[in-house]
Amino acid sequence: MFKFLITKKSKKSRARLGVMETDHGSIQTPCLVTVATQGTVKALPHRLAKEAGTSLIIANTLHLHLKPGEEVVKKAGGLHKFMGWDGPIMTDSGGYQVLSLGFGRDHGISKVMRHGSDVTIKSGQQPRGVKITEEGVAFRSPDDGSRLFLSPEESIHIQEHIGADMIFAFDECTSTPADKEYTRLSMERTHRWADRCLAAHGRRRQALFGIVQGGRFEDLRRQSARFIGARPFAGFGIGGEFGSDKKLMADVLRWTIDELPDAKPRHLLGIGHPDDLLTIIKEGVDTFDCTAPTHYARTGTAFTSSGRVNIGNAVFKNDPGPLDRKCGCFVCTEHSRRYLHHLTRAKEILGMTLLTFHNLNFFHAEVARIRRDIRAGKV
Amino acid sequence: MFKFLITKKSKKSRARLGVMETDHGSIQTPCLVTVATQGTVKALPHRLAKEAGTSLIIANTLHLHLKPGEEVVKKAGGLHKFMGWDGPIMTDSGGYQVLSLGFGRDHGISKVMRHGSDVTIKSGQQPRGVKITEEGVAFRSPDDGSRLFLSPEESIHIQEHIGADMIFAFDECTSTPADKEYTRLSMERTHRWADRCLAAHGRRRQALFGIVQGGRFEDLRRQSARFIGARPFAGFGIGGEFGSDKKLMADVLRWTIDELPDAKPRHLLGIGHPDDLLTIIKEGVDTFDCTAPTHYARTGTAFTSSGRVNIGNAVFKNDPGPLDRKCGCFVCTEHSRRYLHHLTRAKEILGMTLLTFHNLNFFHAEVARIRRDIRAGKV
Repeated sequence: MFKFLITKKSKKSRARLGVMETDHGSIQTPCLVTVATQGTVKALPHRLAKEAGTSLIIANTLHLHLKPGEEVVKKAGGLHKFMGWDGPIMTDSGGYQVLSLGFGRDHGISKVMRHGSDVTIKSGQQPRGVKITEEGVAFRSPDDGSRLFLSPEESIHIQEHIGADMIFAFDECTSTPADKEYTRLSMERTHRWADRCLAAHGRRRQALFGIVQGGRFEDLRRQSARFIGARPFAGFGIGGEFGSDKKLMADVLRWTIDELPDAKPRHLLGIGHPDDLLTIIKEGVDTFDCTAPTHYARTGTAFTSSGRVNIGNAVFKNDPGPLDRKCGCFVCTEHSRRYLHHLTRAKEILGMTLLTFHNLNFFHAEVARIRRDIRAGKV
Repeated sequence: MFKFLITKKSKKSRARLGVMETDHGSIQTPCLVTVATQGTVKALPHRLAKEAGTSLIIANTLHLHLKPGEEVVKKAGGLHKFMGWDGPIMTDSGGYQVLSLGFGRDHGISKVMRHGSDVTIKSGQQPRGVKITEEGVAFRSPDDGSRLFLSPEESIHIQEHIGADMIFAFDECTSTPADKEYTRLSMERTHRWADRCLAAHGRRRQALFGIVQGGRFEDLRRQSARFIGARPFAGFGIGGEFGSDKKLMADVLRWTIDELPDAKPRHLLGIGHPDDLLTIIKEGVDTFDCTAPTHYARTGTAFTSSGRVNIGNAVFKNDPGPLDRKCGCFVCTEHSRRYLHHLTRAKEILGMTLLTFHNLNFFHAEVARIRRDIRAGKV
């Protein structure tokens, strides 16, 4: 069962409020999806992940394929039972890993090119260690070097075994160095893969989301959104790259969402730093996932109402204040900056756990605030 | 404020039930003291440490001296405020670290010599890198190699800054390879250090415990217990080595406790594996600390009602059962062995957190069961 109901549309922007209904509960949108790559929110017990505001998690198909293997998850009755997580779950298709293991590793690139680069990826070019063909993607396991192959059918097969409430079509995630011809040919292949995913999708209880590609090129983005938007997907992922600056990201979202059917949900894949939240929600994104809150926490970085705080910095050694004076989470009410500084310097796991909790709570509170502002007609 | 009230004495053994009253709450004894070396129960948020049964924690003087430094803790208003822990706290004196950085590192020895060894430590001998004199112990920081010096006065000074409810006198912890003459001379020095600790102890709100040494030698243990037991300590630690087998450990406890005043609490330092619990409690130990539940958890080992379980073992890959069928903790009711196996294999922090919770809960439940058995006249 999957339903998406839009409860309010903003008059000031493309933002909208909605409710997703799944077999494992409902989700208020716009919603940050908490990342749980290997079937756990890193460093956080489930109940704390929920207390920090998590209503929906996203696990990764390739990671779960490698460990513990989808057969193990299936035998357990699916990922909800395997993890002991009773809330809604998404799985990413593995397409992003094609980027991160391929061109991403070759050139040190991610979804957003934050610094200038003179690398160009041309059509016909293949990343080292990853072979992308019409059939699918051949690559080697980052764990043990063994040969692996992912295709649209294989990704759907794995995701059906994992059993998330929402799953994604298999795509190639293109990146900023890709030239227009590479991006066009890749996008067209992703479209053919989208149809193969629809054909392969048997478990109708799972909501299958198609993924729009097309890079930073307006004509390609519109073309991709029209193609994917016309298919009988339950919702749409917006993948690939968003150019070299935040302005271009908003443009790419606008071109894409312009062409997508209004009634279905839109998930932005792998984007959502604090300064992106308002932009992406105002462009009409309903859900989005981002590793920033959990990843940065484990490096000692907190997101606060006054910006990023590197808690290992010596200035916090005797700081009696809370991590964030405007935050009401238990980390900020029960612990001081000096204690978090000590835990981080002493390499104690609890430091990572507490920062992860605070960061997640901070992001979810920010999104909840934006939801309230949409309801109040301010956004 | 520190009070100890014995509420029941067993007729079948030396076991007794009691209540310790401190400024930060009361403790039912016999009690396992949860280890929080650097001011955190490793891998566990405070509220989960409490939920697992913790009523009293023990932090380490030398570790806190090194990080964050006792001045930082003092400025925070003491360790309770620094950590955000409102329950009772003990600090170890640093004496055990003299062993572990000295002869322990030289010969790979710990408090209990589990395997035979042909090493003998003779009187006058010094460990490498640690110099023990009448004045105190000079050694190098395990962190950065800088020169450090601990003495009775310095240990008490640091512990007063840290501000635990119960603190320990500075001692030398002797080990099984020490011959009788080494053990005797060391014990006599520890006695002189005990008097220096009493003289140095200014903060009467903290309960100072003396430490009995004397190794595996009946005459020395009795002599030490009489000496330390006659001093105006609030309670007594039983330190040092307990010979090469469990039988000898019970003997050492009996000789020691025979000579100690009945009305004051007895803490056994650093001992408490599951198969020790009944023995040490029957010999009249009131509190004891042991790293086993937390340390083993982080290596993937769970303690259960059917023995130790190495959850990373391949046999658990598809095991749908709980870690321990007889356990009612949330790890055993909400998670399966296969999930814990996956988390451990995937090197996820949550695996360590969940095993730490279960192990602590298991130990505390065992001790609670023994308390009930004492109350019911069965132990």
